[in-house]
Amino acid sequence: MTQSTLARSWVTSANGHRDFPLQNLPLGVFSINGAAPRSGVAIGDCILDLLAARDAFDGEALRAVDATAGGQLNAFFELGRGPRVALRERLLALLGEGSPLQAREAEVLHRAADCQMHLPAKINDYTDFYVGIEHAQNVGKLFRPDNPLLPNYKYVPIGYHGRASTIRPSGTEVRRPKGQTLPAGQTEPTFGPCARLDYELELGIWIGQGNAMGDSIAIGEAAEHIAGFCLLNDWSARDIQAWEYQPLGPFLSKSFITSISPWVLTAEALAPFRQAQPARPAGDPQPLPYLLDQRDQAAGAFNIELEVLLTTASMREQNLPPQRLTLSNTQYMYWTVAQMVAHHSVNGCQLQAGDLFGSGTLSGPQPGQFGSLLEITEGGKKPIELASGEVRKFLEDGDEIILRGRCSRDGFASIGFGECRGTVVAAR
Amino acid sequence: MTQSTLARSWVTSANGHRDFPLQNLPLGVFSINGAAPRSGVAIGDCILDLLAARDAFDGEALRAVDATAGGQLNAFFELGRGPRVALRERLLALLGEGSPLQAREAEVLHRAADCQMHLPAKINDYTDFYVGIEHAQNVGKLFRPDNPLLPNYKYVPIGYHGRASTIRPSGTEVRRPKGQTLPAGQTEPTFGPCARLDYELELGIWIGQGNAMGDSIAIGEAAEHIAGFCLLNDWSARDIQAWEYQPLGPFLSKSFITSISPWVLTAEALAPFRQAQPARPAGDPQPLPYLLDQRDQAAGAFNIELEVLLTTASMREQNLPPQRLTLSNTQYMYWTVAQMVAHHSVNGCQLQAGDLFGSGTLSGPQPGQFGSLLEITEGGKKPIELASGEVRKFLEDGDEIILRGRCSRDGFASIGFGECRGTVVAAR
Repeated sequence: MTQSTLARSWVTSANGHRDFPLQNLPLGVFSINGAAPRSGVAIGDCILDLLAARDAFDGEALRAVDATAGGQLNAFFELGRGPRVALRERLLALLGEGSPLQAREAEVLHRAADCQMHLPAKINDYTDFYVGIEHAQNVGKLFRPDNPLLPNYKYVPIGYHGRASTIRPSGTEVRRPKGQTLPAGQTEPTFGPCARLDYELELGIWIGQGNAMGDSIAIGEAAEHIAGFCLLNDWSARDIQAWEYQPLGPFLSKSFITSISPWVLTAEALAPFRQAQPARPAGDPQPLPYLLDQRDQAAGAFNIELEVLLTTASMREQNLPPQRLTLSNTQYMYWTVAQMVAHHSVNGCQLQAGDLFGSGTLSGPQPGQFGSLLEITEGGKKPIELASGEVRKFLEDGDEIILRGRCSRDGFASIGFGECRGTVVAAR
Repeated sequence: MTQSTLARSWVTSANGHRDFPLQNLPLGVFSINGAAPRSGVAIGDCILDLLAARDAFDGEALRAVDATAGGQLNAFFELGRGPRVALRERLLALLGEGSPLQAREAEVLHRAADCQMHLPAKINDYTDFYVGIEHAQNVGKLFRPDNPLLPNYKYVPIGYHGRASTIRPSGTEVRRPKGQTLPAGQTEPTFGPCARLDYELELGIWIGQGNAMGDSIAIGEAAEHIAGFCLLNDWSARDIQAWEYQPLGPFLSKSFITSISPWVLTAEALAPFRQAQPARPAGDPQPLPYLLDQRDQAAGAFNIELEVLLTTASMREQNLPPQRLTLSNTQYMYWTVAQMVAHHSVNGCQLQAGDLFGSGTLSGPQPGQFGSLLEITEGGKKPIELASGEVRKFLEDGDEIILRGRCSRDGFASIGFGECRGTVVAAR
């Protein structure tokens, strides 16, 4: 048990907090009372205002604080590990019990409930991967019963470019998209609101230091190029997707909105929850050398419990609690985040601070672990029953999806991601 | 014949200039002698420095000039048609014969040969379409002999998200990418430099005024949301593409670099070269209502001649001229640029000023009109012979590809896009 796992904060709501104890300290961008967005640190039910507390930092930690200015964390992400760790060490001291900062509580702390969260960075490019192998198999069965997992899957960390302009923080409403769909048994499409709206449970990865175009990031260095992590809901219009996706992949079926949790969890906070990359089943190929690193294989994966909850308008009226749809884990990633970075840049593609990756849907192998309704209802064939007496094949207007992520380990303080919420509203 | 087609410029190199006569007036971003990038207008062999000439503008035209400040045209693109037209009218007067600006030539004009061109805007999102139906058929035959054109093609303006971070202006070297490829007859991939490097001849479309997330841009308004046009080379690694592209589309096979011509041609300059959307062959479906507009059908297409030239290191040593590989035309687009805008936003996807679209490869139906080596050599099966005695299946290190675009019509001054060049250099 390390020192920090015992440490407590003078922010009393932090001690035992589900998401944000002293051991987490994620950064984000918030605003309060209509002021300009600025950077903060989640601590219990509060946010530490880094601008207000700026004079409590010096050296590398101050350099990090100053890089968070302006309502975007891109420059902070670009600084890399050294200043980030210095900031964390100083925050542990400042927010720990006995810190003189406590005397300035009214000046430097805001109640999170009074604040509005924003995107933590300007997202230059967004890439969505497909590393959840159980999801790939489940969906592959629906789209291609004969070859659910394509021959490249176990060699290539499959990904595609996503739409950056419509990534929004938790709480942004999800307007049901309109588009072309091909009704069953027809040969001509119709146009109208999506009838098969779905969620996808993903881990989000924030890129830190980038690379010059033409250079590659070696697998052994790749983890150093990651600035942090969040939750990501890759909202999907399944009927639009099925009709549009050949031959160039998903487009309008995904680009209407992508929701993320607003707090950026660091590699340092997640360090106790690293684990070995699960052994590849017998017969699976070894990763090619540019994707293979001993340290990454030994500790490049994560044990993060991921949960999806649903509330409907009727459930809220009846005061019924949110109903769990999914309980999964990041351990079902077939590729590590370092492998994703190494692969993305191996052709010389330039990554930049503030780029965002999605992991792809992280389903587990068992019912109850499926990370989308497409998998849970087998494409709408098996509706689910809700506690309210309602049934769902896909999402209806008024439905709210809540993603949660949580890390637990004996002897360590549990930490969480906060929530990623979105409520479906009717098509215009 | 309109007044402006007769008009001549006091910049004598502009009169009869292949690309940049007085009737064109494209905007771009240049730098000279190491100074910060700033905006300019191409006129003959020169560039009008808009900052140096600022005091010659007023009203809406001055508002447009001021929006071009800072080395990025995004704010200018966002202004839309009114200020853009006002700027054009004023430029026609200022650069026309008899203008008092001639007396300030040394102050306001630079020789283009002395300047370096930059990307004209910060590109937020890049989307590559697939509207060249001849290309789609030619490539479809190679990848899917049984169904070259998928069932959605004549209903959906197919597109996918591309990588924005690696778009570069003409002249940037093209580093041969490395990646996974599946050798013929093998079941396991190998890793190494791309062996099937190709070009793709495309029209680039700059987005002007955007839309709020959740809103759509109606087809009748879509043309007003386009800021201008360029040439685009969607460099492609065919061997990497063939192995990686299922099921989510091209990724690393395209993201190593995309080259564009640096000058932004306006709708006003291209107005004489508009034409009716070519009639759909009998039996083709009508566009769905959200893609159908009478004015767009009547004049939404373009007659722009597009050319691809190749020089090799050996050809340059022998002083042989560039050899034409492709002579095509924008009239082979199955969908108009307005249809691309309307489709992209119909699901509520937010477009922003400075977004870039590629048309997709614009091949014609005849040999000599194919817009990629993949089509010309039938996937490498039919190498081409060059005047130097060399042969090519795909591009080799040292090869330079030059795209050109040109508009001609009786009674109107011809205008052009300038060049989009790139030379292949060896993999690292």
